[in-house]
Amino acid sequence: LTLAKALAAIVGAENALDDSGSLAAYATDHKERGVPPLVAVLPATTAEVQAIVRLCAAQGVALIPRGAGTGTVGGAVPEAAAVVLDLSRMNRILAVDADNLLADVEAGVVTGDFQRAMEKQGLFYPPDPSSSDTSTLGGNAATNAGGLRAIKYGVTGDWIAGLQIVLADGQLIRAGTRTRKGVVGYDLTRLFVGSEGTLGVIVGLTLRLAPKPATKRTLLAVFADVRQAGEAVLAVLRGPVTPAAMELMDASALAAVRSKLPAPIPPGHATLLLDVDGDAESTAREAAALAEILAGTKMVALRRSASEEEAKALWAARRAISQALYEIRPQRAADDVAVPISALVELFEGVEQIAKKAGVQHACFGHAGDGNVHVNLLYDPADDDESARVKRAREEVFRLTLRLGGTLSGEHGVGVAKRAFVPWEQPAALIDLQKRLKRAFDPLDILNPGKVFP
Amino acid sequence: LTLAKALAAIVGAENALDDSGSLAAYATDHKERGVPPLVAVLPATTAEVQAIVRLCAAQGVALIPRGAGTGTVGGAVPEAAAVVLDLSRMNRILAVDADNLLADVEAGVVTGDFQRAMEKQGLFYPPDPSSSDTSTLGGNAATNAGGLRAIKYGVTGDWIAGLQIVLADGQLIRAGTRTRKGVVGYDLTRLFVGSEGTLGVIVGLTLRLAPKPATKRTLLAVFADVRQAGEAVLAVLRGPVTPAAMELMDASALAAVRSKLPAPIPPGHATLLLDVDGDAESTAREAAALAEILAGTKMVALRRSASEEEAKALWAARRAISQALYEIRPQRAADDVAVPISALVELFEGVEQIAKKAGVQHACFGHAGDGNVHVNLLYDPADDDESARVKRAREEVFRLTLRLGGTLSGEHGVGVAKRAFVPWEQPAALIDLQKRLKRAFDPLDILNPGKVFP
Repeated sequence: LTLAKALAAIVGAENALDDSGSLAAYATDHKERGVPPLVAVLPATTAEVQAIVRLCAAQGVALIPRGAGTGTVGGAVPEAAAVVLDLSRMNRILAVDADNLLADVEAGVVTGDFQRAMEKQGLFYPPDPSSSDTSTLGGNAATNAGGLRAIKYGVTGDWIAGLQIVLADGQLIRAGTRTRKGVVGYDLTRLFVGSEGTLGVIVGLTLRLAPKPATKRTLLAVFADVRQAGEAVLAVLRGPVTPAAMELMDASALAAVRSKLPAPIPPGHATLLLDVDGDAESTAREAAALAEILAGTKMVALRRSASEEEAKALWAARRAISQALYEIRPQRAADDVAVPISALVELFEGVEQIAKKAGVQHACFGHAGDGNVHVNLLYDPADDDESARVKRAREEVFRLTLRLGGTLSGEHGVGVAKRAFVPWEQPAALIDLQKRLKRAFDPLDILNPGKVFP
Repeated sequence: LTLAKALAAIVGAENALDDSGSLAAYATDHKERGVPPLVAVLPATTAEVQAIVRLCAAQGVALIPRGAGTGTVGGAVPEAAAVVLDLSRMNRILAVDADNLLADVEAGVVTGDFQRAMEKQGLFYPPDPSSSDTSTLGGNAATNAGGLRAIKYGVTGDWIAGLQIVLADGQLIRAGTRTRKGVVGYDLTRLFVGSEGTLGVIVGLTLRLAPKPATKRTLLAVFADVRQAGEAVLAVLRGPVTPAAMELMDASALAAVRSKLPAPIPPGHATLLLDVDGDAESTAREAAALAEILAGTKMVALRRSASEEEAKALWAARRAISQALYEIRPQRAADDVAVPISALVELFEGVEQIAKKAGVQHACFGHAGDGNVHVNLLYDPADDDESARVKRAREEVFRLTLRLGGTLSGEHGVGVAKRAFVPWEQPAALIDLQKRLKRAFDPLDILNPGKVFP
């Protein structure tokens, strides 16, 4: 246990955990199960992170950066002997610069805490992954987390002006600028964003902010089937109004949350849930414009929120779905594939056919404005046959996604869960180039080794 | 001349130029002068580019990718024996996918041609570098070109879904996805964007599009000095309306274009030129909202366009400025520094002091919404003393920019013109990391060697 003692010398004994109870919690994220780490170390400062990285490099021990562990693909989960670097103690909002719409934070700040702190100052941090109440800004950056508002506001990477990174040799660098534009050298900020802890440890972020939209309105449009909902998605995207969210639930998803619906919706139907935000006048105008566009589609019913409470009621079913699926079957394969928007309907219909053929229950919903669909295939892990059928069906969903011009992950990342399938999407030359890049940044292969690439 | 013959065998003799007249044109861009290349080669296909890269790699000859040569920092200019790869013949728009708001193009398509082709289909490609009538989409991507509309629509990189790249070993890869979100592997697209031809040759682009805004309105606000204009910039950015352009001209710039002004503006004053765009109703509403915000500042006069012709008149001075400066002095140091918006005024005022102290004429104007300022220091190259004073003043502008938290280039890039100054902005560890990255991508140092980093 020399390693634990050496780590304890850096962060204090209470922040270098090696009891089996503590370590067990670090063996999993929200979905994948790996093995417990040798030690979980919780630094409080960048200097401590640097010392930890140098120690692991010197001892040749793998180091796995971890935010709140809300990932679903095993990106922060050890597969073999490793140290987990838990950044949750580095959770200070260091500075807010309202004039330049910038904030400096440590990597372990919880996203929702940050959003609320900004809103108190009339500011807005738009990226909104559904894990935001527990996930961290550093983890969001490492995975380039998406979320509900990406259609209008983009993903996490679009709101990062700069990053502070501890490299694999313990050196600290600052990537990016405090300016809105900057083209001196390579865009390392975007390279670290989404690199899942394999290229460096994100210890600090300079985030962009926006003025806070004063109001929000919600519309719920009902369609007789997913095809007609998909056509409405295209109609909205052609129009002059960019909604702040556009969520599609097909019949399979609506069936799972029937009790949470604001009004009965017949089986087989599909819904589009749309938000618009901005100042009061533009929000009202945009809601009206969207309603007009939707009226020109094959929509069969439209509900509009007149208050924040009504908006919450319209969102209740969408918010409840992840939990509701566990009430149907104890486990699920949950994949966040993305396709070009015009292929959304083919994806939804194709998944339905795949699930039917495999004899498994499914639920599809997603960020329609991004073509990013959460495909859930439900099963009981105690049922070997059902588990095997889901495994095969999941692979068919991946093949369908790629046939439609899509990608295997829109927002969750690769981690270990999709690693074997990366060659289905990317040819060898592309994977080789990325592995060369990884070696240039981390020649000893210390940082989250084995993740992302097969 | 084996090299020229070997290149001619790939592209045909008429597309492998080695006469001194042709080569002279490839020794310069719009600003920097290098040396003529050994050969200028103009491929028509990706396969030809691959063959050229392989040939140069085998012969150990440097290869310099070039779009239209509208750069100003020497990024596409040879400094020693090299082949220039002119991509202007690869100028086809291959496909437009209006449903998914995507277009596939070859690298040599002229940006303005592409913009106009999209507008004919009711679509919109927002990046608008001032060189757009001649510069190419591939060149825009290689430099991450900015332009007038970046405040609302972002820079070139924000509109690139994917790139086709010929690597230094001649392999072709496709980076990016055709989806709006994608997090499988590293963000190579963003890494190649702005890499100034040092990591690979961009041969094709998948560009994002938007629905075309139906209308545009222009406002010209006059202020008694640049400080009050700068305060108005901050007031606008705090508000709910994002202008499609916000250009600041200080007294030095207005003096240079006095004859083009739509109405007399007293010496010492400064102007803000703002565009809003969108559908007719929202444009009118946003113009009114901006006028109200500006009325709350120390603005002394406001002019608003009621027609496209009036908008053009309001823009005439801004459009004329680059040319007008050559009428004052035959040459200029033209640097595109960027600072946090709150430091805009300090930059303008600081440059004025630096120019006064150095006894040189200057003109400052820029994309105020991005903090991106074009600092022009005018001189006659025949006047050695004035040239030396400008050289020293330019370095003082760089020091001031960095002291204000800025960056040496907001949109032009580094090329050769700013290479020596990169260490002023970036510490050795950061430059070393980028050089390791370059070596991983181009181990033989064939692609645009020696550019960007000192």
